[in-house]
Amino acid sequence: MEKRDELYSGKAKSVFKTDDPDRYILTFRNDTSAFDGVKVEQLDRKGMVNNKFNAFIMQKLQAAGIPTHFEALLNDTEALVKRLDMLPIECVVRNLAAGSIVKRLGVQEGLELNPPTFETFLKNDALHDPMINESHIRSFGWATDAQMARMRELTFQVNDVLKALFLDAGMLLVDYKLEFGVFSDGEIYLGDEFSPDGCRIWDKETREKLDKDRFRQDLGNVVESYELVGRRLGMNFDA
Amino acid sequence: MEKRDELYSGKAKSVFKTDDPDRYILTFRNDTSAFDGVKVEQLDRKGMVNNKFNAFIMQKLQAAGIPTHFEALLNDTEALVKRLDMLPIECVVRNLAAGSIVKRLGVQEGLELNPPTFETFLKNDALHDPMINESHIRSFGWATDAQMARMRELTFQVNDVLKALFLDAGMLLVDYKLEFGVFSDGEIYLGDEFSPDGCRIWDKETREKLDKDRFRQDLGNVVESYELVGRRLGMNFDA
Repeated sequence: MEKRDELYSGKAKSVFKTDDPDRYILTFRNDTSAFDGVKVEQLDRKGMVNNKFNAFIMQKLQAAGIPTHFEALLNDTEALVKRLDMLPIECVVRNLAAGSIVKRLGVQEGLELNPPTFETFLKNDALHDPMINESHIRSFGWATDAQMARMRELTFQVNDVLKALFLDAGMLLVDYKLEFGVFSDGEIYLGDEFSPDGCRIWDKETREKLDKDRFRQDLGNVVESYELVGRRLGMNFDA
Repeated sequence: MEKRDELYSGKAKSVFKTDDPDRYILTFRNDTSAFDGVKVEQLDRKGMVNNKFNAFIMQKLQAAGIPTHFEALLNDTEALVKRLDMLPIECVVRNLAAGSIVKRLGVQEGLELNPPTFETFLKNDALHDPMINESHIRSFGWATDAQMARMRELTFQVNDVLKALFLDAGMLLVDYKLEFGVFSDGEIYLGDEFSPDGCRIWDKETREKLDKDRFRQDLGNVVESYELVGRRLGMNFDA
């Protein structure tokens, strides 16, 4: 697989073309951003940790039958993935109330949400990723009804797999954001990444925050916490 | 029917108990408010116009088989209604883009929405009526799935009836907000009111605004426009 031109550089990752039109290379950088890009820092080792974290999780999801774009870990900071036509929708499941929902709906942080909530946001930086509903998605053609139903189904399947995985390691999967795309075979695959940058993870006993809220809230030890979570799940960051 | 104590005074209407525990009297006041109560004025004759406007629309909806709380026009500013246990949800249908959706989703005012969008908002002044989805309604118990499905069904039935009614009179029903409640028989009824305070109506040819946007945007002739709309629909405000 030959790495070619950079296609796109996001807030924390870059995407490169390859000699295979159906494969991209993702590069995980050390850039860390929050609050819609207002707070940005370089955190040593974060690209490596998130790349390996993501590879581990994607393999767990694939083993459970969930189609993901992940194909192979290439090196410390790069992964080979399927080229997807991404759908402009972020799917968010919340098992416990934290972050934006606390203020938006006036609920207490840590409240158990039963059943877990499912929210959709439009990926649009200029509009600050507004919350949308399935009627907006239908009226504006952002996804077909079948695609939306599949994204919802996969998002909840991910919850079943990962809630149990984290719980077995003494942690709570509070919430997470997923993005999906369509591969050349016409099927929906989980795209983007799964790392502590895009989810919330708390220690089950102490409820200590082990995710990007450490960066947002200046709690320190950001990458160290990501690594701690990974090691508790069985990841090896030294290999 | 004997009018008893005031139960509740909202931004534009007051609710009074009666000697029948299942019946309330609604009083339509001249108070007009916008922007979450920040802009408030008294507009002469508005209570009378909205009371008669609402009675006319409710009777049209009932004739089409849609259950509403409306029972009788009592006098210029008062109506007798069923006592409902209101569900804390505003149901909004948009046929054309206008108001908050224009900024929120970056779409042009007047864009035709096909199919019309359906949005739900939590009635909560302190939280400024945030947009919610059906998953929030389920998780927080704001309505049962069956109640929500019925509210959605009735909201679109109202659209079928009223879009045609306005179009026949040379006007476009741009969007509207409905609220529902449960009567003592356990069924869902359309509650609150239907007037130019809670919907947008444009002239079909000129697209002149004939609703509360005249108040929000300081266009003048607010109540005169409400009356004009009503007269074009066949209402008689002098009776």
